[in-house]
Amino acid sequence: MATIGFIGLGNMGGPMAINLVKAGHTVKAFDLSAEAVAKVVSEGGVTAQSAKDAVTDADFVVSMLPAGKHVQGLFVSGDDPLFEHVKKDVLIIDSSTIDAATVQNVAAAAEARGIGFIDAPVSGGVGGAKAGTLAFMVGASDEQFAKAKPILECMGKNIFHAGSHGAGQVAKACNNMLLAVLMTGTSEALNMGVKNGLDPAVLSEIMKQSSGNNWALQVYNPFPGVMEGVPSSNDYQGGFQVDLMFKDLGLAMEMSQLSASPTPMGSQARALFNLHKVNGNGGLDFSSVLKLYQDQ
Amino acid sequence: MATIGFIGLGNMGGPMAINLVKAGHTVKAFDLSAEAVAKVVSEGGVTAQSAKDAVTDADFVVSMLPAGKHVQGLFVSGDDPLFEHVKKDVLIIDSSTIDAATVQNVAAAAEARGIGFIDAPVSGGVGGAKAGTLAFMVGASDEQFAKAKPILECMGKNIFHAGSHGAGQVAKACNNMLLAVLMTGTSEALNMGVKNGLDPAVLSEIMKQSSGNNWALQVYNPFPGVMEGVPSSNDYQGGFQVDLMFKDLGLAMEMSQLSASPTPMGSQARALFNLHKVNGNGGLDFSSVLKLYQDQ
Amino acid sequence: MATIGFIGLGNMGGPMAINLVKAGHTVKAFDLSAEAVAKVVSEGGVTAQSAKDAVTDADFVVSMLPAGKHVQGLFVSGDDPLFEHVKKDVLIIDSSTIDAATVQNVAAAAEARGIGFIDAPVSGGVGGAKAGTLAFMVGASDEQFAKAKPILECMGKNIFHAGSHGAGQVAKACNNMLLAVLMTGTSEALNMGVKNGLDPAVLSEIMKQSSGNNWALQVYNPFPGVMEGVPSSNDYQGGFQVDLMFKDLGLAMEMSQLSASPTPMGSQARALFNLHKVNGNGGLDFSSVLKLYQDQ
Amino acid sequence: MATIGFIGLGNMGGPMAINLVKAGHTVKAFDLSAEAVAKVVSEGGVTAQSAKDAVTDADFVVSMLPAGKHVQGLFVSGDDPLFEHVKKDVLIIDSSTIDAATVQNVAAAAEARGIGFIDAPVSGGVGGAKAGTLAFMVGASDEQFAKAKPILECMGKNIFHAGSHGAGQVAKACNNMLLAVLMTGTSEALNMGVKNGLDPAVLSEIMKQSSGNNWALQVYNPFPGVMEGVPSSNDYQGGFQVDLMFKDLGLAMEMSQLSASPTPMGSQARALFNLHKVNGNGGLDFSSVLKLYQDQ
Repeated sequence: MATIGFIGLGNMGGPMAINLVKAGHTVKAFDLSAEAVAKVVSEGGVTAQSAKDAVTDADFVVSMLPAGKHVQGLFVSGDDPLFEHVKKDVLIIDSSTIDAATVQNVAAAAEARGIGFIDAPVSGGVGGAKAGTLAFMVGASDEQFAKAKPILECMGKNIFHAGSHGAGQVAKACNNMLLAVLMTGTSEALNMGVKNGLDPAVLSEIMKQSSGNNWALQVYNPFPGVMEGVPSSNDYQGGFQVDLMFKDLGLAMEMSQLSASPTPMGSQARALFNLHKVNGNGGLDFSSVLKLYQDQ
Repeated sequence: MATIGFIGLGNMGGPMAINLVKAGHTVKAFDLSAEAVAKVVSEGGVTAQSAKDAVTDADFVVSMLPAGKHVQGLFVSGDDPLFEHVKKDVLIIDSSTIDAATVQNVAAAAEARGIGFIDAPVSGGVGGAKAGTLAFMVGASDEQFAKAKPILECMGKNIFHAGSHGAGQVAKACNNMLLAVLMTGTSEALNMGVKNGLDPAVLSEIMKQSSGNNWALQVYNPFPGVMEGVPSSNDYQGGFQVDLMFKDLGLAMEMSQLSASPTPMGSQARALFNLHKVNGNGGLDFSSVLKLYQDQ
Repeated sequence: MATIGFIGLGNMGGPMAINLVKAGHTVKAFDLSAEAVAKVVSEGGVTAQSAKDAVTDADFVVSMLPAGKHVQGLFVSGDDPLFEHVKKDVLIIDSSTIDAATVQNVAAAAEARGIGFIDAPVSGGVGGAKAGTLAFMVGASDEQFAKAKPILECMGKNIFHAGSHGAGQVAKACNNMLLAVLMTGTSEALNMGVKNGLDPAVLSEIMKQSSGNNWALQVYNPFPGVMEGVPSSNDYQGGFQVDLMFKDLGLAMEMSQLSASPTPMGSQARALFNLHKVNGNGGLDFSSVLKLYQDQ
Repeated sequence: MATIGFIGLGNMGGPMAINLVKAGHTVKAFDLSAEAVAKVVSEGGVTAQSAKDAVTDADFVVSMLPAGKHVQGLFVSGDDPLFEHVKKDVLIIDSSTIDAATVQNVAAAAEARGIGFIDAPVSGGVGGAKAGTLAFMVGASDEQFAKAKPILECMGKNIFHAGSHGAGQVAKACNNMLLAVLMTGTSEALNMGVKNGLDPAVLSEIMKQSSGNNWALQVYNPFPGVMEGVPSSNDYQGGFQVDLMFKDLGLAMEMSQLSASPTPMGSQARALFNLHKVNGNGGLDFSSVLKLYQDQ
């Protein structure tokens, strides 16, 4: 069993840390919110007084932060960078969803100090975080991946080795951009079919068994009433918020711009989620984008 | 066993007619090309001298024509409309991919004469036509659907009852529009990933097991070398041509316009296939749209 | 002074016919609405009892109809086609906005009978129709154009010879597609500027004097309060309705499809006007598309 | 006459500095390229040995740098930030095209030190820089704008006060995004018209006199042969490169993302310029995007 410093205990990070506790690890938990720390401690975690305190004796560090600048600041360029305080043989696993360029900068800075730093963004949402069924997309050397895998398996089901440093972020950006395309495309096909007289459940079934088959039709149908237990059948509550999808699409566009990779479909999806967001739907599940298409 | 008049024996219609022959039906085959007729006759079909000859004694008529005006002209408004020559209890199954409005007009004209006319466009391509594994999307009454089903099962595997007259065309237009969205979206995600250093097979596998999962990743990967036996691994030969996808997207846009159903993603896909087509790729398989994204 | 049969006296056709009357021509006016006829007669026009009555002795015929099928039916393929009743040396000027293919069919049928038929769709809206300041985009031979010009100048200011038959429709479809692009693009630039703290009038002025300069900034600013006397400063009442722009964009898409001309920007504009229309804004002036972008 | 430190003497900065020299100012010129400095010195400028040397005694500083990080680094956060070396009453005019957020950060840092820092990005290209006819879009207080104006008038013709700090960048991003929309929209309308038989010059003239009127039709027609003296009539050499337009659209997208301002048309234009760029056209004038639409 390892000692793990965990920094960032929000909606995702909190349940992830608890799953590490449940697996028997010693988890030193830190967050700016004392309440968030308390939750993990109540499940058996250890209170860390500071980020530094969380990482000092840790074999592994897991971080879950909002944006690239926080990761950069925390480890490298802030007032008291953690790279100065970690053990030499630590492996830092950053599960934040951030831009690949920052990951590569931070990983290079780590390597220069002989520290291991890998990117391992997740997909699967709050539900997956609680259930321990997240997917991790990992950017790491083979050796680092092998070392991280048992830790990640305490929190997730599918652990993918996407490539070297930054590759986890690239894979996630590509996947989520594609997901946005699937959801908008499926919503628009269903809406056109229904507006032309078809039953949404019948059309969903036909397309699912044909070449229109995709994740949205399989497990996340955006049309209310077609599928049970999904956000569309619960007023689009819960799930993966429009605001978060919009953030992820922003990262995908940044990647598109930096690498001059054309993304006409992803750009279109971003524009549609933006239109949906300015209609006041940022807090709804992202499958609510169907409403953008419907007659008001 | 039934007597079936079959009109239109092209790349799709020919193999479909032959499958009816193989199932034991008497197939009276007509096409403007004598060669096309001869092929069906060589498998046991009967030569019809004219469209009229093909349908006169038929219990069922199957038609496979290029566009709505041909269907309208052949049955209703041409020089010698077939509605004047068919038996009262015939069931006409039109498998052409045409606009739903024409279907509804022709079906109404049929009903006024007491004739049964249903739409049953297919998906599955030339391969599916030969193998008898097509999907049929049927617009018909319950009774008509029940009557047509055994005939359609000689030619296909999945026989969907989409709704009343025209609903088969609506379902196909929605499905193929969604397919175009999946293929362009998948191509663009793969291209961006590869341009950022990922292996196309690794990224394909990650997205297939994640929320980017869709038909293209499952059975029709557009990136050369990732999947065997698909057009992308055969210089984009065979399969479903860009020109045909462009035609189908035109039908989807017409439906969008007539019903004022917003289709930003489908419109985008149509524009991309158009750009790909003007680059001289109309005759390639539609998964070749990946090339539009790649550095030349 | 000529005898002119005028068919179709709606919002556009009515004032156009009246301007012909005012110029001193004998105008035999026909419309399915007796009220519409009465209005023209009250200004000095002559009541025609039927379309046939309107055209029988006419030197010129002007038609203003909703769609291609009406033009085709009225002149060529209806129950009592007008081509059977017009004088040999008549010149028929169709000012309807329809598809170029129908124009070319009807013009060919006319030519076969030795009759002159040209397309002359207009731009300039109801205001331009009343003021006699319409622009006409004419598809005609040089001789036909020369003959039509004095008649058109009674109703408009700019009379363009776009090319041979159908070219008027092509020019109008291209222009209006571009107009839709200008209006959506201008709205979105203004909205982004304002959301980032700029004054809409200041930003409008800067872009008008820079490379963003276009018709919308010059005479039809979509931002309320920037410009006087335009629909945006009158709750988007009057002007050119969203529904009509959506119709015109449908014609442009049909042209794009038939000629395989890529229209990613025009397709995008159509999708945006469609989204705006399903929000219940079909009856507003098209510059109201700005509202689609704004926080609700 | 003032002493002006000028940093960044590239294609744009070089001619701008020379115009300040010609107006009689003392220009202390610095660039990493000694050759670039020599050119300005040969016109009467003064060699600065370093950026620090250029600004130490300056009444004004003008900077023209590639990206936000360079501006941030040079003035605030680099090894030897210029804010430590400038005179108290200096006015720093940054003419770089960068993101508004960086401008606001740097301006705030300046204000905290009692230094004046304003953004004044330009439009008008290399030609405008040489001729002294640039447009400046300025983000500044009223007082700062009044102080900067005489200096800017040595280099440009239209000096716009867009608003407070950062507003110059916002105005430029909005304008150039709209310009990209105008150019792609105009190219696509012209291409469709020509593909349907119209003469590009005739169609250009019609749209210019109608509601399709815009800057591209007025002074920068993208169709070869329609207009003299523009890049399209010179194999798309010179002018404003595709690569630069792509950079500016990236800045616009970043602004869209940060402010959640929907930009479906601007996003589309970015995607089209990206497709055009991966075809190997990054070094051509941006009006060459017409080629993307044309049959190859």
